[in-house]
Amino acid sequence: MPILVMKFGGTSVADLDKIRNAAEKVKREVDRGYKVIVIVSAMSGKTNELVGWVDQTSPLYDAREYDAVVSSGENVTAGLMALTLQEMDVPARSWQGWQVPVKTSAAHAAARIEEIPRDNLDAKFDEGMDVAVVAGFQGLSPEGRITTLGRGGSDTTAVAFAAAFTAERCDIYTDVDGVYTTDPRITSKARKLDKIAFEEMLELASLGAKVLQTRSVELAMRYKVRLRVLSSFEENTPDSGTLVCDEEEIMESNVVSGVAYSRDEAKMTLISVADRPGIAAAIFGPLSEAGVNVDMIVQNISEDGRTDMTFSCPTDQVKRAERAIKEAKEHGEINFQELVADTDVAKVSVVGIGMRSHAGVAARMFQALRDENINIRVITTSEIKISVLIERKYMELAVQALHDAFGLETAA
Amino acid sequence: MPILVMKFGGTSVADLDKIRNAAEKVKREVDRGYKVIVIVSAMSGKTNELVGWVDQTSPLYDAREYDAVVSSGENVTAGLMALTLQEMDVPARSWQGWQVPVKTSAAHAAARIEEIPRDNLDAKFDEGMDVAVVAGFQGLSPEGRITTLGRGGSDTTAVAFAAAFTAERCDIYTDVDGVYTTDPRITSKARKLDKIAFEEMLELASLGAKVLQTRSVELAMRYKVRLRVLSSFEENTPDSGTLVCDEEEIMESNVVSGVAYSRDEAKMTLISVADRPGIAAAIFGPLSEAGVNVDMIVQNISEDGRTDMTFSCPTDQVKRAERAIKEAKEHGEINFQELVADTDVAKVSVVGIGMRSHAGVAARMFQALRDENINIRVITTSEIKISVLIERKYMELAVQALHDAFGLETAA
Repeated sequence: MPILVMKFGGTSVADLDKIRNAAEKVKREVDRGYKVIVIVSAMSGKTNELVGWVDQTSPLYDAREYDAVVSSGENVTAGLMALTLQEMDVPARSWQGWQVPVKTSAAHAAARIEEIPRDNLDAKFDEGMDVAVVAGFQGLSPEGRITTLGRGGSDTTAVAFAAAFTAERCDIYTDVDGVYTTDPRITSKARKLDKIAFEEMLELASLGAKVLQTRSVELAMRYKVRLRVLSSFEENTPDSGTLVCDEEEIMESNVVSGVAYSRDEAKMTLISVADRPGIAAAIFGPLSEAGVNVDMIVQNISEDGRTDMTFSCPTDQVKRAERAIKEAKEHGEINFQELVADTDVAKVSVVGIGMRSHAGVAARMFQALRDENINIRVITTSEIKISVLIERKYMELAVQALHDAFGLETAA
Repeated sequence: MPILVMKFGGTSVADLDKIRNAAEKVKREVDRGYKVIVIVSAMSGKTNELVGWVDQTSPLYDAREYDAVVSSGENVTAGLMALTLQEMDVPARSWQGWQVPVKTSAAHAAARIEEIPRDNLDAKFDEGMDVAVVAGFQGLSPEGRITTLGRGGSDTTAVAFAAAFTAERCDIYTDVDGVYTTDPRITSKARKLDKIAFEEMLELASLGAKVLQTRSVELAMRYKVRLRVLSSFEENTPDSGTLVCDEEEIMESNVVSGVAYSRDEAKMTLISVADRPGIAAAIFGPLSEAGVNVDMIVQNISEDGRTDMTFSCPTDQVKRAERAIKEAKEHGEINFQELVADTDVAKVSVVGIGMRSHAGVAARMFQALRDENINIRVITTSEIKISVLIERKYMELAVQALHDAFGLETAA
């Protein structure tokens, strides 16, 4: 009894027609011989409406009540999807998180899935049920209260079910038909990837290619769940979309798999920081407490006991970062001459597991940017990624130049 | 620790402002020293929207999925109400039906409450919680699935909680300020009753004065729960509204408490039915199976082995009734000359527990109608009610005449 997990996001179940369209895709897999676990999001817009009500009611809300309210959208879709399948003569029933149960931590509004016992669903599969429709994004805390997994949590629900039920694959249906070498709105040469490694997908997800939630990719990587991203609105074959998988499954690949970008980056520099052991902690501790998501960090070599420290963060967190840094200075925790914020930058990155075994990727990247006279302001690298901050107006140009330079238009 | 149950219907929680208004009423009772169990309906319109989606998806829906979908509206309101109370510094939390749990039968979409264990709520009250906000209308089946109690079920939820927690009172907040001697839209002389007996309320509820759901009144009568109907949109004192209570609590009362009416009645007569033992069962069995709600039944004396049989039912069930009767005739189960449907009638009733000990109520009623030249077509009586069918155009006139005749404008 091979099991398949299929996840439909909010735009894929936005109204009764779309739910019917999704149900037809489920039926096709049942006809192919699968038992299917369907994970559904709320109809698009519903969760935002509920969140809005909670925010208006109580700015500093009790997260347990927030969860009780915002989880209701998925319950509606799950029931409607089960009914639609039944109308197509597919034996199906809906499950809310607490009924499975999807056991989570007690961290309301950002809970982590801890266990999904198989007994209840397996018993129904044995009785002849072909499809279990599960409300995504929600679970049950140790105290018996409803939890949610944070926005986009339905992807994580889907991967967790695929892991718990050792599903053959976890298909994530969305409004794009796969993962691309870069954003097709920036260059028409962008090419859909047939396969991408978990590690690459993780870098692309966190770099703002918002096809999959980062946590779901991490989970898939840990449990080796084969993830497929494909379109709800096209006819699909078993080879459609993009497979996110272990790198061993990818025989040939380009050195670089994709070019990612992020428009909303700001670069902040503390000039002439008194350098001493623990200075980094003294700076980034307060930033973390203030809820600033620091991305890149660059420290230049020290001269005369003073150094420059540069970091990047989302543009809309600049004010918060400035306040945190200034307070740390007032409390005597750090000492610097000046704090300079540059909100006119963008981040461009090349990502690829092939970098591990190929030298010269950085050189080729810098050369391509120089050929377009694009000045690089900050550089950071990881094992499979090189990121640069550049002036924002060059962002599209840089993406196109790098896409060309690494030959991404054609497959390896 | 006196407990109060307060129930707010859909119009009383229709938006965030109304929820706040309701929460203020709850806070006032907490300040008076009560522990409060608040039962909430869905925001008005929400349940209809959900029911519409289910109907469109699956005309012959699986009632278990129907329940999973339509119960979600109450969960939203319960969470928002708890958050609103917390904002007012009232310790509160929300409970969904399965969390309490409200144990019901497995009759989905029309489940009956079987048990409400007190442990979970009591434990929280002991810990300092002042208000438990419970989603109305829903429960948990023996199989662990969500059930609903049928439309208007939140009244029943409220009374069941009041019984289980031996509450001092069950306050039903609605958009009217109490129970009237008759519909104030028909006569400005209509007077709000301070108290009304359960039995009278039952007759008025089933006669179409839709202030309370019939089942909730039955339940209140069985468990002697003091019910109070009052307005969400007025300042209330402990004596506001109408108290529905045991007749022993009502010291003095008019012989007749109220005049009820129902516009949507139809009178159907089977002319010259072959009279034999079992003929009533042969007629009303098929009607019941066809889902026709038969109200009044009148059989005249038999002559030459044939009789006329008259019954009333809602106007919109006439076609269904005709089909059922005709099929029964074709199958040879009954034999009659003609079936005459009169859809131009209305029902007017006088109700009062005082009738039991006062003779002459019927005579006074018939006299009042004769004085207005209103012809009576059918009469039925119960211990505390006399109902007549009359031509529809006289309905308002009859109500006014009876209200005057029994002196309802002034209290006893």
